[in-house]
Amino acid sequence: MQYDLVVIGSGPGGYVGAIRASQLGLKVAVVEKAELGGVCLNWGCIPTKSLLKSAAVFEYIKHAEEYGIKIEGESKADFEAMVKRSRDVADGMSKGIQFLFKKNKIDIINGTGKLKDKQTVEVKKEDGSTENVSAKHIMLATGARSRELPNLPQDGEKVIGYRKALTLKKQPESMIVVGSGAIGSEFAYFYSSIGTKVTLVEYLPNIVPLEDEEVSKQLARSFKKANINVMVSSEVLSVDTGGNKVKAIIKTKKGEETLEADIVLSAVGIAPNLEGIGLEEVGVEVEKGKIKVDEFYRTSVEGVYAIGDIVPGQALAHVASAEAITCVEKIAGQNPQPIDYNNIPGCTYTSPEVASVGMTEAAAKEAGYELKIGKFPFSASGKASAAGHKDGFVKLLFDAKYGELLGAHLIGANVTEMVAELVVARKLEITGHELIKSIHPHPTISEAIMEAAAAAYGEVIHI
Amino acid sequence: MQYDLVVIGSGPGGYVGAIRASQLGLKVAVVEKAELGGVCLNWGCIPTKSLLKSAAVFEYIKHAEEYGIKIEGESKADFEAMVKRSRDVADGMSKGIQFLFKKNKIDIINGTGKLKDKQTVEVKKEDGSTENVSAKHIMLATGARSRELPNLPQDGEKVIGYRKALTLKKQPESMIVVGSGAIGSEFAYFYSSIGTKVTLVEYLPNIVPLEDEEVSKQLARSFKKANINVMVSSEVLSVDTGGNKVKAIIKTKKGEETLEADIVLSAVGIAPNLEGIGLEEVGVEVEKGKIKVDEFYRTSVEGVYAIGDIVPGQALAHVASAEAITCVEKIAGQNPQPIDYNNIPGCTYTSPEVASVGMTEAAAKEAGYELKIGKFPFSASGKASAAGHKDGFVKLLFDAKYGELLGAHLIGANVTEMVAELVVARKLEITGHELIKSIHPHPTISEAIMEAAAAAYGEVIHI
Repeated sequence: MQYDLVVIGSGPGGYVGAIRASQLGLKVAVVEKAELGGVCLNWGCIPTKSLLKSAAVFEYIKHAEEYGIKIEGESKADFEAMVKRSRDVADGMSKGIQFLFKKNKIDIINGTGKLKDKQTVEVKKEDGSTENVSAKHIMLATGARSRELPNLPQDGEKVIGYRKALTLKKQPESMIVVGSGAIGSEFAYFYSSIGTKVTLVEYLPNIVPLEDEEVSKQLARSFKKANINVMVSSEVLSVDTGGNKVKAIIKTKKGEETLEADIVLSAVGIAPNLEGIGLEEVGVEVEKGKIKVDEFYRTSVEGVYAIGDIVPGQALAHVASAEAITCVEKIAGQNPQPIDYNNIPGCTYTSPEVASVGMTEAAAKEAGYELKIGKFPFSASGKASAAGHKDGFVKLLFDAKYGELLGAHLIGANVTEMVAELVVARKLEITGHELIKSIHPHPTISEAIMEAAAAAYGEVIHI
Repeated sequence: MQYDLVVIGSGPGGYVGAIRASQLGLKVAVVEKAELGGVCLNWGCIPTKSLLKSAAVFEYIKHAEEYGIKIEGESKADFEAMVKRSRDVADGMSKGIQFLFKKNKIDIINGTGKLKDKQTVEVKKEDGSTENVSAKHIMLATGARSRELPNLPQDGEKVIGYRKALTLKKQPESMIVVGSGAIGSEFAYFYSSIGTKVTLVEYLPNIVPLEDEEVSKQLARSFKKANINVMVSSEVLSVDTGGNKVKAIIKTKKGEETLEADIVLSAVGIAPNLEGIGLEEVGVEVEKGKIKVDEFYRTSVEGVYAIGDIVPGQALAHVASAEAITCVEKIAGQNPQPIDYNNIPGCTYTSPEVASVGMTEAAAKEAGYELKIGKFPFSASGKASAAGHKDGFVKLLFDAKYGELLGAHLIGANVTEMVAELVVARKLEITGHELIKSIHPHPTISEAIMEAAAAAYGEVIHI
């Protein structure tokens, strides 16, 4: 069988690209060695959000009385049931991909794919046999895995990565989470909310270090209020897994500290899956640890494309999807616009939630912009008060000269759903006044966006 | 004291206008006969959202086990505590307005205001005395009240309006809600969710009759699943409050039916407060029951302005606020754009939530548009699955010819926060493809907007 397109990897890059390609008339196969949907769907975005929803419901139950609800007796997080729910949600989604592939007449080839030449993928099956699959175009979408630090080797028992953290048999009493990006912060929040004693260790001076500093500081305050032990400017020097518990030696600004915990979760970033996929053999160029591609994801080898975590750009599911769509639309002869990597939103689904798009205040200043900054606190939002979620704010950065919305930084309830407005606003090059004059429904937390814009221009009403 | 502006009424029109006017250098006074913040803040938007949040938390508690949480013992809605919480939230917001007035040096004049002449407001105080207040400009912002039907007279005991429904001493066992607009539907949902047996009676063939028919039908399905007795194409002929309960005779398509309930809530719309404010005396023109104004809210009398529920246009808090801002900006010599009444979002905070902006499918067809319609169900959204909120959809209407986004209709979790994106999108005249190519964060429910746009153009991925 000769395919128009063979995709290696069925994550949110691969499966989305495959479906779009099929829509455009290409005959497509996807090579996948594990579950359809990749890490995002099976071991990342989806199951973590399921656990975090359980945590959110548990939080409401803990605070039920504040909402006028009486619970007689004890409430308990049933860790096993929460994990089972999250597996069921992930499995359901994975089956959904299977359905979509069938509907779109996309062939699934189970096995490990490897570039053999620029028009052939060699698939190694579970039984050891291999199959060669021919294609006019090959898209590499192999994604990434948990990065391992030399001084924090994962044994899968006491020192674990995100996968294991999703399927622990038993809720640990204590946990050290190393790394406070989205993954680390989400697990820290989840485990802490169900009663695990959590320490969050971050090498840089702020948690969620890619976010605007004010957002980081607010999240740190919320985490501390939630009894998470937050250690910034700190580094795990070594772990000792010899005893019942893990002993971690942590270097802080004040010297070394030894912490004990049941589990150490390493969440220090991800490593792209570039090994064993035939890059060297076929001559696909790699630069700074990522596959070199042009704006339509063409690698140095004609007919071979790469998207997602293995190419430069934010390693996020929605970026991989957008890249894959752009790539296959170009292959199919459409005329897609290259992706604007400055307008990619990022979300962290802790409580409070964090969401942002565009430049941080520090980055904008470093780039030489004169800024108009508007900030609106949720404590002044009627809807946030009614909802019992008064922690958080919206912060917007406008270029003082032309009114361009340079960056948006949100923390608080619902902000992961609210940030899309700012993506659209930036795409259409909104000005401050156009945003102020967009009538937001009352009462919603989204009004805080309009008010933050108004604050930047001295027109805010509610503060 | 000579004011630049005196505002009669401190609702979301009046207080917002007063603050904006003060920002622009005007000396402002506000005349208010009751609580600062008006109906919206004290008896509408805010306290209802507080009760609905209690209901949402109670729903989570009822379904706790599905999220992996064990509750030993009974959970009970404490109606009195829920009402107290909602009063506290409203009172807190009202105090907030007091603070904002002080900060903005706005005088509050307690009493009932009435136009005496085009530059004088007569204020009748509680002690019976009157005071004349002079102003260069007078803005009428007297709002509206619950409309009474002749065959459904409110006695404030068994047949009540929204105010009383917010402060009942005791949770009724049964309730008939007449009228299924936002107010009626929200109360029906709230009372039903805490265990009251609710019947919702709607004269028109669909509940939330201003919404797109598909949304109405979905909400009706959800309400029926929640054990709300939904009666459409039905009319209350009479009520008998003589016995222990209220007996209501309801005309349905199948004939007359007699229902009994503890309480009948009349939610058949609102009536603007035009009486006794001096309109006839000063010669302010009224047309079809609303004050006649131009695009800057100037009435037929120079120097007298009117905004909010007493003028044509949607009777919504955010509309009143926007009108008041536009009005005072014009007074202050700014150059505001007139409001685009076709781009006003509307929200209903039931569960599922309902939100919309622009034309319904029926209205667009009637207007002669050829449509591209895209619909994306929440059952196909990963985030909605993870959150346990799979009921709902996003439906977008595009003009087939020019790609204009004519209308957006959303039902489901979080849609009241999501609709702002579509307001901004429409304000900036987005096209279908610009919306498809706006990268929404994964996993969020807001992705459903992008997918609905893609569905309209045959590019949807997840269905």
